[in-house]
Formats: sequence, C-alpha cells, structure tokens
Amino acid sequence: VRAAPAQEDIRRLNLGAVLRHIHVSGAMSRADLTARLGLNRATIGALTVDLADAGLVSEGTPEAAGRGRGRPSLVVRPESERVYVLAIAVGVERVTMARVGLGGVVLDRRETEATREALTPEAAVATIGEFGAALLKAAPKGSTHVGTGVAVAAIVRTDSGTVRFGPNTGWHEQPLAELVAGALAADSGVTGPVLVGNDADLAALAEHTRGVAAGCGNVVYIQGDVGVGGGIIHDGVLMSGADGYGGEIGHMVVLRDGKRCGCGSRGCWETEIGERAILGAAGHPGSGREAVDAVVEAARRGDVGAQEALRQVGDWLGFGIANLVNIFNPEMVVMGGMLRGVYLAAATQVRSRLRTMALASSLEGVKLRTPLLEEDAPLIGAAELGFARLLTDPLEAAAG
Amino acid sequence: VRAAPAQEDIRRLNLGAVLRHIHVSGAMSRADLTARLGLNRATIGALTVDLADAGLVSEGTPEAAGRGRGRPSLVVRPESERVYVLAIAVGVERVTMARVGLGGVVLDRRETEATREALTPEAAVATIGEFGAALLKAAPKGSTHVGTGVAVAAIVRTDSGTVRFGPNTGWHEQPLAELVAGALAADSGVTGPVLVGNDADLAALAEHTRGVAAGCGNVVYIQGDVGVGGGIIHDGVLMSGADGYGGEIGHMVVLRDGKRCGCGSRGCWETEIGERAILGAAGHPGSGREAVDAVVEAARRGDVGAQEALRQVGDWLGFGIANLVNIFNPEMVVMGGMLRGVYLAAATQVRSRLRTMALASSLEGVKLRTPLLEEDAPLIGAAELGFARLLTDPLEAAAG
Repeated sequence: VRAAPAQEDIRRLNLGAVLRHIHVSGAMSRADLTARLGLNRATIGALTVDLADAGLVSEGTPEAAGRGRGRPSLVVRPESERVYVLAIAVGVERVTMARVGLGGVVLDRRETEATREALTPEAAVATIGEFGAALLKAAPKGSTHVGTGVAVAAIVRTDSGTVRFGPNTGWHEQPLAELVAGALAADSGVTGPVLVGNDADLAALAEHTRGVAAGCGNVVYIQGDVGVGGGIIHDGVLMSGADGYGGEIGHMVVLRDGKRCGCGSRGCWETEIGERAILGAAGHPGSGREAVDAVVEAARRGDVGAQEALRQVGDWLGFGIANLVNIFNPEMVVMGGMLRGVYLAAATQVRSRLRTMALASSLEGVKLRTPLLEEDAPLIGAAELGFARLLTDPLEAAAG
Repeated sequence: VRAAPAQEDIRRLNLGAVLRHIHVSGAMSRADLTARLGLNRATIGALTVDLADAGLVSEGTPEAAGRGRGRPSLVVRPESERVYVLAIAVGVERVTMARVGLGGVVLDRRETEATREALTPEAAVATIGEFGAALLKAAPKGSTHVGTGVAVAAIVRTDSGTVRFGPNTGWHEQPLAELVAGALAADSGVTGPVLVGNDADLAALAEHTRGVAAGCGNVVYIQGDVGVGGGIIHDGVLMSGADGYGGEIGHMVVLRDGKRCGCGSRGCWETEIGERAILGAAGHPGSGREAVDAVVEAARRGDVGAQEALRQVGDWLGFGIANLVNIFNPEMVVMGGMLRGVYLAAATQVRSRLRTMALASSLEGVKLRTPLLEEDAPLIGAAELGFARLLTDPLEAAAG
C-alpha cells in the first residue's frame, strides 16, 4: 500500500500521462487531452509546452482550422521523426531490427534469416551491432535515441535481461541485455540501458497498446513461431510472474505421456500445435514458416491431407484455448505468428472445442482474433519496452 | 492512462493508505507509519487524528513507554471491537457467518451444515438472515457495521454479485448480493451494499493479505472443497478476469476424454483431484469433508489402499500445479480446503511431477504451502471484501 504521490511527483506523472496519450493515440488537440485526462486547460497547456520544449511533441493549429467561435485548440503531435527507439526481435530463425519513432511509427527496418543452428547468441548479437550501426547512420541529424528494447523467443529473466532458456534455440544463460548493449556501444557509440522481454509477452503488449486488443483489459495472446509462447494482459498490465517467466502456455501439458518437448517434459501444448506438429501431421518434409504457410495454402486449394492435418491441429488449438478461457476469463484471445493461418483454416474445430470444453460464463464474452500488427507484433512490443522510461519520466529521459 | 490524483483526492488516498496499514499489520506507532508510508510526521499526525475522530482507530502511549529521549511516538490501534463487517462463506454443504472487526479479528462466528440438496439458495439466504440478526443482536452498543462480503463456491459475476453457475450446487443465475441484502434488511435493518466473490478468489485474497502469502506478489491458491477452485494474485492484485469468472483452474482439462465433470466438460482437473475422485480411488462409500479426512487419516495409519489412492491423486495434483507454475510463474502455490491434507499426505508425488513437468526457471523460485487461515480463508476473504470501501474512503464509509 502506497501513500498518494507527493507534490513534486505529480508534474512528472502528468507529463508521462500526456505523452503516453499522444504516443498511443496520435496527434490530439489540447481540448481532447483536457477532456481525456480530467485536468484543467491551464495545466494541460503548461504540460504540453514543457513537452514541446523538450523536443518530444510539436504544437500547431489544426489543419482544418474551424471558422467557429474563438481560437481553435492547438494540436499536439508526437515528434515521430525526431524521437526514436531501437527495437529488436530475435526469433528462432530470424533477426529483425528497426528504428521506431514516438507514436509507434516504423521509420527504418532491417531483417535477416538464418538457420536455427547458425543463429547462435554470438551471431545474433553481431547482426544487431551491424544493423544498429546502419540504422543510426541513416537517422536524420538532430534526432534522438531514447531507448532500446529486445523481444526474444525464449524464457527471459526480465530484471537482468538474461535469456534463461530457449527451448527451441538451445540458448542457456545468455546475458542478452549486456551483450546487445556492448555491441551497440562498440559499433555505434549508443549508450543507455537495453531492456529484454519474451517475444510473446511483448507481442501481447503491442497488440494491447496499438493493435487488435486496444481497449481490452484482459487478453490472452498466443504466439506460434517454431514453439508456442504466450503473453497475458491482466487488467491492462502485462502478466510477467514473479521473475518474468510467466505466460509459458506452450508448456501446459495437454496430453499425459505425449510427445517429448524441447523443454524436457512430454505432451506440452507446443508438441500438438507447434511447427513440427503441423508439418508432421501434413507429412511435409520441410521446416520453417514457409513450410507451414505451404500447408495452409495446400488446404485452401483442397488438398485433403493438409485439410485433415489442420483439422487435427485446430482441435488441439481449441483444446488449449478452452483451458485458457477457463483460467483467465479474457475478453479476447489473439492467435499470432504461424497460428494466425492455422486458426483461419481451422476455425470450425477451434470453436467446436470451445463449445464443449469452455465454461459458458467465460465463453460468452470472449472474442477470437488475429493480430493487427501481424508479423511485427514482437518488434513493436520491443519498441514499447524501449519507450517505457521516456513515458514514465519524459523530461529526464529526453535529457539523456 | 490516468493523470496524477488531484489535490482534493490526496487526503482521501492517504487516509486509506494509513488505515489499510493498521488493518493489515495491526497496532503501529506514528513513527513506524511515517517510515512505512514515506510521508512526513505532521501529515501522519493529522491523518491519524482524523481517523481517530471518525472512530476508526484509537491513539495512546505505548504500553512499555521508553525511558529514552523525548516523548514516545503515539501508537495507533484499529478499533476492532467497534468497527466491523458481516462476513459470509457459502460452501457446497455449509454456511458460515461472522462479525469480523477491523484488523481481521473474528469477533463472533456461526456455522451450519446441510446436505448439498438441502442447501438451496433460499435455504442459504434464510440462514444468513437468521445468523445476521443473531450476530447484530450480540454486537456491543455503539459498534458500527461498515460492510458485508460473501464468499460462495460458484462462478460469480462480481459487478452485480450474481451467481452465474455452481457446478457442484446446481445454482444458476441467482442474484445472491440482492437476496442477502434483502434478508439482512428485513431481519436486522442492516443496509448498504453486499459484495459477492468466488470462495477461492477470496481465500487467495485473505492468505495474501494476512496469511501464508503475505508479502508475496504472485500467488496461485487452490481451494479443494467438493470441487476445485482457484484464486490468482498477480502483482499484488486479485485476478478476476473480464467478468469476474477468472481462476477456474479446476476446469482446466488434464485428461482428454476423461471423466464427466459437473461443468459439462470431460477430464477437468477437478475430476481427478476433487472429493469424488479421492473417495472413489480409496473406495470410500461416504461423502463430504469428513470422508476425505478419514482417507487421509487411514493413509497416515498405514492403510495401503488409502495410501495408493492419495499417491494417485497427489500425482494429478502435481500435474496441474506444474501447468500453473509454467503459466503463472508464481512465488507461492497454496493448497487449501481438503487439498491441504491431500498435499501433506502426498507431497512426494506432487514434487516428483513438478520436477518432470515444470520449467526449471519457474520451478526454482516457487514455494508450496498450506493456508495459515485454514478453513476460514474464504470467510476472512469475504471480510476483506466487506472492508474494501472503508479502506478506499475511510471518512465517507465510516459516516455511513
């Protein structure tokens, strides 16, 4: 239980609240900010002037100035081109990195693919160093780097940014935050903390902040990559658990004595709906996202074997979602990564399982959706992590 | 995103914070409150005087007044005998009701048992009306009722206090808050809102507030009654889900095509660790808590059949806990109700399952515990629900 904030903290809290509104909702008039935040006009005016002086927003007359009574309310715009973070997504077979501007605008984006074996921690960090140097070189003069966030397909100790374990990469105890900070400092002279989170957690955060789940307080996000991860939003807050390892819904056992999983257990949900399960059921010899997409496409064209494989996986997808609906009572379940295509192809099986297994009370309110940010949800979530300090203490963070 | 609180809200927030500290931690000196809340001495003094004037706390010199320098700091005590709530726990076969004083002190407690068939909503509400009248009659003159909370073994729509569905009672769409408020008004003239919550949710809240999980931010509480319920504390907040139905971990399916469950599904965790599963495995013909306790006692005395039954149930208990550890990464898992005895008898099986199924990263930090408040955890949780308004706005609530 905390006491109310002291007088000297109130200005910082209000600056953060104003900047967060502009960051999430985009350009907005002072009048709208006044209404949304429940503060008075003079206070909002003083806050936006401070934010403009710090170079975080610009103020100007609205484009279609009203001919109505009095002066139109100034419009406050995020300085998206000038204020940016470095956002990084490290998948099992891919590294993506971008400069993302205030307001969540992807300004410049790089991507590379590798085999799972070649994407060692050293290789990933080297790529990040190179991409970082290229992105910074291309950044306009006078623009400011305010943070760095990394999304990784692994179990992450969030306070230290250490990868504890990647069931599908084999990474163990890699101090990723430290390694990335070192590479960025060496290759580009960029300083400041690097924050690291689990890719599904950050994808959930991104879809909740500016995607399909905007405005939903309780969300279950399921990320299908090679394995299956999860991000849970509870009452508007990302559920990280005691150490940051929460949300590992892919390692909920759905079949006692089932197939061996990369985590060491058997019958995890991931072994029935992960990439290997889909390709195995379809008899597809390949691997990777393209192979899964090929199965989905074959089913769409009428291939009976592919259709049967997706029905089987869709049934297990619905099975696990039913459990999660009973456990979390979410407003929305979002299926991302390669599970997007699987769900769209097997929605009938998913819904049928939900009807027989989920509690009617929790089922009636839940929406099933696919991500608005598509493949970039983890990357945009990493950007949100990078912006977190700026949005908590705008003037301090903007000053470096 | 909210703005910082306005000046006029700060006093209310601070009064609530001080009273909550006294309610949770008991009598405390002004000096300790000053240190804990990070406010200055004069502010704390003004707040405790306001709370004392409202009759919520009393202030006095410490019993062992120091001979040290200067005046000793006044000790602030909760007015536990004068300020109370009515707390009610409605189980599948039992109604318990108590007057609980500020600070969580059970002042006067009544209980009745019934068969599951006899405990209709009408019968439960009639009992609550009678108990309420008796408790109020016995209350000291000048004492004040500040709220009413009900814990019920059912799925509850928390905003309206409606029981949506009781898988083990057969209750459907019962407006319990309204019915209890009506009975209390008719039988005792008590007014004010009645708040209703799920029994496992409220037991979790109680153990988090003043039980074994005090100080733990992330807790999974498993309540074994006839069925199996759950209460989840995430980052210090009870996870209720979108409509208040969250935490139904007993209806996580652990065995595809398993036994038929009262919820309509098959193979729910409850069908493998609930009362019927335990008694069935042990070949015990009876029902109810006493029957389960008899199995646990028989195992303790060396009965091989009872031991084998508990090993089997303990294995399934560990199975479900492993899933919850992977999903939530809690600091603590608390096993309450009849699962307390089952766990203590079968801890070896539980731990063995956890070792093979839980992710090492999430397992290493988790503690397995039994409730400190024992059978009364749901009742004390109902009391916390009753106190909620007082702790949010002490002066307004104390004024009626």
